[in-house]
Amino acid sequence: LLLANEVVDARRLGAVTARVTVAVDSEVTIAAAAAGGVREVVIDVNVGLPRCGCLPGDAGRLADLARSRGLSVRGVMGYEGHAAGLDDRATRARLTEDAMQQLLGAHADVGGELISAGATGTYDCNVWATEIQAGSYVLMDTAYARLGLPFRQALCLLATVISVSPGYAVADCGLKALGMDHGNPLIDAAQVLFCSDEHVTFVPEHTVRVGERIRVWPAHVDPTVAYHEWIHVVTGDEVVETWPVDLRGW
Amino acid sequence: LLLANEVVDARRLGAVTARVTVAVDSEVTIAAAAAGGVREVVIDVNVGLPRCGCLPGDAGRLADLARSRGLSVRGVMGYEGHAAGLDDRATRARLTEDAMQQLLGAHADVGGELISAGATGTYDCNVWATEIQAGSYVLMDTAYARLGLPFRQALCLLATVISVSPGYAVADCGLKALGMDHGNPLIDAAQVLFCSDEHVTFVPEHTVRVGERIRVWPAHVDPTVAYHEWIHVVTGDEVVETWPVDLRGW
Repeated sequence: LLLANEVVDARRLGAVTARVTVAVDSEVTIAAAAAGGVREVVIDVNVGLPRCGCLPGDAGRLADLARSRGLSVRGVMGYEGHAAGLDDRATRARLTEDAMQQLLGAHADVGGELISAGATGTYDCNVWATEIQAGSYVLMDTAYARLGLPFRQALCLLATVISVSPGYAVADCGLKALGMDHGNPLIDAAQVLFCSDEHVTFVPEHTVRVGERIRVWPAHVDPTVAYHEWIHVVTGDEVVETWPVDLRGW
Repeated sequence: LLLANEVVDARRLGAVTARVTVAVDSEVTIAAAAAGGVREVVIDVNVGLPRCGCLPGDAGRLADLARSRGLSVRGVMGYEGHAAGLDDRATRARLTEDAMQQLLGAHADVGGELISAGATGTYDCNVWATEIQAGSYVLMDTAYARLGLPFRQALCLLATVISVSPGYAVADCGLKALGMDHGNPLIDAAQVLFCSDEHVTFVPEHTVRVGERIRVWPAHVDPTVAYHEWIHVVTGDEVVETWPVDLRGW
């Protein structure tokens, strides 16, 4: 298991029986990993997205520090998130190469077998990483769908139409059920007007009836999944499995 | 209990032992209330926000239909949500009056003791409703705070700084923990740059350290609460109560 994130209290991770690798980018997170019983880390390197990750020039020093604390350093990771969502593939590829040149420079100082990077939007632009951290491609969302990637949208909310008025209708899923940072969801054969707490108001192309079920396609799959307790896996209209979700509040 | 919303399957509500009133705005939702064992309804009237609610001129007919199905009709409700969030108080008041004139017209046809309306943003502009449906004022958020209402923000997320870089820092709450439809949250003495799935990147005015706790104020309280499992009630730094939240996926 790779936790591609920093933590300041690693005790629960250290207690997991599986092989666990945790990202570190500072003296505090290295100390937390060592104190928490984690054995393997990667050095998280900032490659252009202002988020976690050390400066590329600090990676070697932090790797040495981690090793001096008894940690095994498996290599580096760097997330080119500033490139992954861009519409133009050539720009995605260029920014990914810039980012990976920085990561390779840091890797030269750090060592280890792992160069972990990438995202669904750059899964095939990134030819430098030895491990691609693409996740959204499994479910996809409308934000990634517009990039023309060869993955199909699999995740939708099955909502119920609860009110029909002249010119528009309302279904029972809204802000409490949908990741909204990438904007409104889509509804097949309809124009979405706006979402409120428990509602989506939309203009259907064809007549809809109160009680009818409709599919609502989220703009951003990651937070959307976190807002739900279960995922129902369907083939056609048949529910073949139901999986619990435990991501609330992360 | 007033469920200020339409449902097409009212069986769980009909089975509740408390006094339950449910909003209806169509023949289907009236039939669902009757079939589900609900005894009391209000006629939901569209007063300007394109969401649920019948046309004002249909309210009397629907009330008669509900009574013919054995339901007690307590009155009307109409939500002036298109007015509640507007910056200018005079505009809020004018739109509220327009909305309430429509609701009073519908009430004349419906009868009953209840004229239920209002929101935190119009709690004192609305002098026509007999019951104000204000809820956010208890906790407040940054979207309502900018309206200058006499209520204080009480709800924040306590996040942990997990990474500090030259010029900015990252804390461990993001899109999975924050209602984002009204935009980024605020952080005291800092400028928020952006949120990602599990992160908020911000520029602090003073030095922050990895491991430090910071308060993050959500832009929209309703979905934010729904994304969490517990609310901790605090006085100063002391947790005096912890309440479970069961709003996931609504």
